Amino acid sequence: MIRIGILGYGNLGRGIECAVKQNDDMELAAVFTRRDPASVKIQTEGVPVYKAEDAIAHKDEIDVLILCGGSATDLPVQTPEFVKSFNVVDSFDTHANIPTHFANVDAAAKASGKIGIISVGWDPGMFSLNRLYANCILVDGSDYTFWGKGVSQGHSDAIRRVKGVKNAKQYTVPVPEALEAVRNGENPELTTRQKHTRECFVVPEEGADLAQIEKDIKTMPNYFSDYDTTVTFITEEELIRDHSGIPHGGFVIRSGKTGWNGENNHIIEYSLKLDSNPEFTTSVLIAYARAAYRLNKEGQCGAKTVFDIAPAYLSAKSGEELRAHLL
Amino acid sequence: MIRIGILGYGNLGRGIECAVKQNDDMELAAVFTRRDPASVKIQTEGVPVYKAEDAIAHKDEIDVLILCGGSATDLPVQTPEFVKSFNVVDSFDTHANIPTHFANVDAAAKASGKIGIISVGWDPGMFSLNRLYANCILVDGSDYTFWGKGVSQGHSDAIRRVKGVKNAKQYTVPVPEALEAVRNGENPELTTRQKHTRECFVVPEEGADLAQIEKDIKTMPNYFSDYDTTVTFITEEELIRDHSGIPHGGFVIRSGKTGWNGENNHIIEYSLKLDSNPEFTTSVLIAYARAAYRLNKEGQCGAKTVFDIAPAYLSAKSGEELRAHLL
Repeated sequence: MIRIGILGYGNLGRGIECAVKQNDDMELAAVFTRRDPASVKIQTEGVPVYKAEDAIAHKDEIDVLILCGGSATDLPVQTPEFVKSFNVVDSFDTHANIPTHFANVDAAAKASGKIGIISVGWDPGMFSLNRLYANCILVDGSDYTFWGKGVSQGHSDAIRRVKGVKNAKQYTVPVPEALEAVRNGENPELTTRQKHTRECFVVPEEGADLAQIEKDIKTMPNYFSDYDTTVTFITEEELIRDHSGIPHGGFVIRSGKTGWNGENNHIIEYSLKLDSNPEFTTSVLIAYARAAYRLNKEGQCGAKTVFDIAPAYLSAKSGEELRAHLL
Repeated sequence: MIRIGILGYGNLGRGIECAVKQNDDMELAAVFTRRDPASVKIQTEGVPVYKAEDAIAHKDEIDVLILCGGSATDLPVQTPEFVKSFNVVDSFDTHANIPTHFANVDAAAKASGKIGIISVGWDPGMFSLNRLYANCILVDGSDYTFWGKGVSQGHSDAIRRVKGVKNAKQYTVPVPEALEAVRNGENPELTTRQKHTRECFVVPEEGADLAQIEKDIKTMPNYFSDYDTTVTFITEEELIRDHSGIPHGGFVIRSGKTGWNGENNHIIEYSLKLDSNPEFTTSVLIAYARAAYRLNKEGQCGAKTVFDIAPAYLSAKSGEELRAHLL
């Protein structure tokens, strides 16, 4: 049994707990939290909850520690720190800072002899893998990534900071015509506005100026001003009833040419349609936790990404079984 | 430069030649053929064509030999034989015989210190990879593979053997309603007939009994009797004008549940739409040739499949570049 530890019991931490339950070769060993452990009620019977600062004391009870913090401030500190004592997996998703994060984790992991797999999930993660495979196969081609339909936490938060807004949920939606043009091999050059629209469901405070809220949202730089944005005002009850889920998904498409004179076109498309963004992300994390465990057993250490790990390491099945049933 | 050799100059061999041209870190070193080399005209200037039986004499001129023979009789003999002298990649696609083929290639490759990557292409190959990744992520779920729309060489050949048939082309077509049900997460149990239809375009010999031909095709066991099959009679000119391409493609879909009580559903879909089946296959083969070269340089040997190879090995780019631009 691979003994899994969870650091941080939010949406991701709860998702890991569910994923461990689905994988017969794993067991949940402990949950570590920055809150008062007595206040954290987990679902798995008989598993202890400890203070995050006590994690190191339990390092011999855990094979892989999954870091469920955020990319902005938690993981840049936590991943290099905890890889000194544990094999770790994180979902660091600030694309621009991945090279620095990788270097920091790699140095710490090589010193400790542990494995740190970073940026695991679906983007970065499965989408990255599909971009890589498709680029290696169709050398002469164009990449397209569309996100959604799904909830963007960052954009929902941005709306909540607008004056007069009580609550809000924002959906990122791919433009169907753009998707279709890409699938048809037309290789369009697409602007930000042509790729995605943004749908906002907003609960206003009582007596708020609705026209002003709508204007403030639609003109917000970076978040909304470059998009066709719709704002729909709803009640708190409607928000809870119709918009409580955290669905997401998207499309990675590569369109490319082969042949002596590039005469043949090919489309590779990978898509996800997810009821729960955090539960899918954690299902990917847990598969890579298995890889971290095995690679470290083989004597490997250092920082890794999904690019560095042979797919067979993700599976609980033997090479023989995989070749016989999935190849 | 990675020096590529081609064994067998048919559709796959010609595809490899085109793919080498697209990859700046590779060069075509030689083509080996069972025909008279003087009769084989290749497209690349200045590259020699040799007799297949003389290949061993040129082993020091070649880093990876790509075996472009068929799975029925060529590859079971060729791959274990040539891996005694070369790093090799093949597209062995008889799923049921993969375990035996792997064992034969593995023994020979371990004895010679070479790498033999088998069953590379899109199915087996990219479809297999997607089945594996999706199974590791969505542990509780169902797999669906649909093929087409595309030309099945085996079924076209079967029609050509029917009495009164001069020429024919067969398309395998996924049933749209079945695809839709799978995408909707309905997890349908699908019979052979419910998944694919077969469209046959047949050029009859002069004076042939068309009704008899249609009956012979539609009732042919294994090939057609389990499918809804349509037969359309056309002229040789129409066949050449409208059905000369070798397009193919398909869909690998996994539908699975996560959550403490399996309350959330997820769909992972991978699809290919290919103008040229052999050119796409060879584009995959050449990426794995790069991996074979690198793995062998690192001192590895033995048989491998797509499951055993970390994605980064397929790319000409460095780990730093991949992390900065594709992750």
